Amino acid sequence: MTKNKKVNAAILIIGNEILSGRTQDTNTTTLALWLNSIGVKVQEVRVIPDIENIIIETVNHLRKVSDYVFTTGGIGPTHDDITAQSISKAFGIKYEIHKEAYKILEAYYKPGEFNEGRQKMVWMPENANLILNPTSGAPGFNVENVFCLPGVPSILKSMLGGLKNRIVGGDPILSHTISLRTVESEIANSLTKVQDDNVDVEIGSYPFFQAGKLGVSIVIRSEDQSRIIKCNNQILKFVKEKNIEVVDR
Amino acid sequence: MTKNKKVNAAILIIGNEILSGRTQDTNTTTLALWLNSIGVKVQEVRVIPDIENIIIETVNHLRKVSDYVFTTGGIGPTHDDITAQSISKAFGIKYEIHKEAYKILEAYYKPGEFNEGRQKMVWMPENANLILNPTSGAPGFNVENVFCLPGVPSILKSMLGGLKNRIVGGDPILSHTISLRTVESEIANSLTKVQDDNVDVEIGSYPFFQAGKLGVSIVIRSEDQSRIIKCNNQILKFVKEKNIEVVDR
Repeated sequence: MTKNKKVNAAILIIGNEILSGRTQDTNTTTLALWLNSIGVKVQEVRVIPDIENIIIETVNHLRKVSDYVFTTGGIGPTHDDITAQSISKAFGIKYEIHKEAYKILEAYYKPGEFNEGRQKMVWMPENANLILNPTSGAPGFNVENVFCLPGVPSILKSMLGGLKNRIVGGDPILSHTISLRTVESEIANSLTKVQDDNVDVEIGSYPFFQAGKLGVSIVIRSEDQSRIIKCNNQILKFVKEKNIEVVDR
Repeated sequence: MTKNKKVNAAILIIGNEILSGRTQDTNTTTLALWLNSIGVKVQEVRVIPDIENIIIETVNHLRKVSDYVFTTGGIGPTHDDITAQSISKAFGIKYEIHKEAYKILEAYYKPGEFNEGRQKMVWMPENANLILNPTSGAPGFNVENVFCLPGVPSILKSMLGGLKNRIVGGDPILSHTISLRTVESEIANSLTKVQDDNVDVEIGSYPFFQAGKLGVSIVIRSEDQSRIIKCNNQILKFVKEKNIEVVDR
């Protein structure tokens, strides 16, 4: 992939605990911000249960329609950790002991502690590329354009640094925010005109409530800084005409 | 739908701000916990951008495979709020001024304040059923099994109470958690046996870190309390044998 190309990704959160509401997912935000910073736009997120055929079907769909797929969850030692096995089946490749991962965990644990439960974590799709884990030893892995990360947010975060050189992004997606002391309905028509005049720029409008007062943040996103500046100027023009206060936020 | 039936739902989060990582979604957790409490299990969550054809396709898929679909976001007054229009197209019905919603907002705003921007919020699919909004006036709506709610978490929460009688759930999904001072690999094999012996019960294992110590929460979920008790007893049996401490959490 060369630069000046749009590169996209899908995020697949695997875990009953998110679907039940027991656990608040934060990995989507972590991954999305990191991917944006390296020029990859998240086009879809799905949360699915720990059910093998659903994981297989969803991975096989997403890996065809996205440049990259990032999965989180299901790579630990317990019975509900079925991501590695499911990815093997999705790609139709063997699920086996990964020798490099075995060596890493054998060295990571004290003698005698690399027990049967922990050994489950070295079972992976044949020839998977490891994603090193500086926090708790057990590596993630990737097969083709699918990257499998753990569900624990602090561990996932610690693994992104080592992954950066393996993701080829496009131009970084730039973002500029203008926060206004107004309500959406006051600026809706003017903002629509700016959007219509700049169809290739993503303009979002988000109400907020801060220090007892309502406001609206307008977010302009594009790979092209000059397009952002153009939209920004058009917005500031109507903001001035309407005598709306610009606020820090 | 009668009781003793499993009832499921899909959640569809509509919004570029979630995909970009700018905004942390919390509506999934709110909806999932509330749906569980009325006997509806969330089987899938998707996050998609503010793009009409993607909204239409996704809604038309999810409403066929799920008993209920809950959408969040995109029902405000600005150009990026395209949920109502997209739902109309998904169902192939007219997108028009909803007279009841018009009356509600006309009464809600002070004279002269019900401007063109705000009037956009009363455009809905023909004959949609309103979902009242005690926080900020503008109603959500539902068409058949699709329920459209706003993206602002506090407003969404305030609208769920009025929705309860319109959702027919199955038996409530019961949940029991056992927290242990151990690591997953110590209990993985024993827990697999309990799961194999209780295939219709959902047993999850989740590591945690609290007050400087590692632990594992085991979550048992079923509509049948007696099945939960059976699993609980089997788990406490191996926990005792292994001399593992049970902790409050």
